[in-house]
Amino acid sequence: MKRFTIELPTEGANDILNVSAELKNSLGELTGEGLLHLFVVGSTVALTTMEYESGLVRHDMSDVLQRLIPDDAHYAHEATWNDDNGHSHVRAALIGPEVTVPFSNGRLLTGEYQQIVLMEFDTRPRRRTIICTVII
Amino acid sequence: MKRFTIELPTEGANDILNVSAELKNSLGELTGEGLLHLFVVGSTVALTTMEYESGLVRHDMSDVLQRLIPDDAHYAHEATWNDDNGHSHVRAALIGPEVTVPFSNGRLLTGEYQQIVLMEFDTRPRRRTIICTVII
Amino acid sequence: MKRFTIELPTEGANDILNVSAELKNSLGELTGEGLLHLFVVGSTVALTTMEYESGLVRHDMSDVLQRLIPDDAHYAHEATWNDDNGHSHVRAALIGPEVTVPFSNGRLLTGEYQQIVLMEFDTRPRRRTIICTVII
Repeated sequence: MKRFTIELPTEGANDILNVSAELKNSLGELTGEGLLHLFVVGSTVALTTMEYESGLVRHDMSDVLQRLIPDDAHYAHEATWNDDNGHSHVRAALIGPEVTVPFSNGRLLTGEYQQIVLMEFDTRPRRRTIICTVII
Repeated sequence: MKRFTIELPTEGANDILNVSAELKNSLGELTGEGLLHLFVVGSTVALTTMEYESGLVRHDMSDVLQRLIPDDAHYAHEATWNDDNGHSHVRAALIGPEVTVPFSNGRLLTGEYQQIVLMEFDTRPRRRTIICTVII
Repeated sequence: MKRFTIELPTEGANDILNVSAELKNSLGELTGEGLLHLFVVGSTVALTTMEYESGLVRHDMSDVLQRLIPDDAHYAHEATWNDDNGHSHVRAALIGPEVTVPFSNGRLLTGEYQQIVLMEFDTRPRRRTIICTVII
């Protein structure tokens, strides 16, 4: 087992970052078959996989989430804490904070267009930490 | 690898339980870096992470889910089985039954406010089993 | 660690396949406690667990997803690529491509009615690959 972390600055509100690109150097030295587990710290951010294409990344994902879990609806969380990110918490909990991806000889076995992405749901820029664990 | 189970009674319908609190004793003895995998048995219950705060736990999460996947809509599942938990199955399948969290020297590496939670979606109280697997 | 793959043909649009049935032979020979990680390759397909019952599989899941993330809404992805599967990408990213399930002596520790399922969201039949990794 090997542990390392990645730090990523985000721009807030629906910023979606391609994490696969960040991982290439870290995985390059690994031989054989294994699993890479990624866990993002925080309760207003999520990890998943998707095609990293401008239409999806800049429009479709945020349009759907805004329709389903609007940023301007009433959230009890906001009344209690006098903040504005109730929707961020709900979105993050539904998508989840972690993903595990198989690799082989230093190469992630994702699809040709399937990238590991971090989805920032908080309303302000954040510095995010992804805890990476290699299982071999 | 180490395997243990946690048993939790729930109150039914949108009861959200903080599992992190339950895990403290079980993890306290572990040294070094590792992963903790949690899997909840059943198809009307889910695991994820979120801030365990009253506004989110008692209001926002259930309000959003009731709007998106209402308990009183028509579900073919209910017509077939003459029960009332079609929405419970759909909610559980979309959120998922498992989560993996990194730990270090007996401490989960979740965020300060990020707790592991069990979401009960069935319409009646249940006794739930979480199968915990430690990978070191 | 042991690695194998499963190939599954799908019928497109909301086809839900029971993967647990496919796995029985592969797991039968394993002794002791372990975890099985499943990752489906592609960005318009997902893995989760659910009761494999006709009402849920043929009606409820697709009805809910069609209401939440309609196949006939506007997606920027489709305008760019002149295709018709923007909703497929969004659905897959929200549910996720992977699931980890504990096993004991060759038997998955899922609930009596809880099956591992592949959800096809693309609009045409596909041949899907699930990369399976056994951790013992």
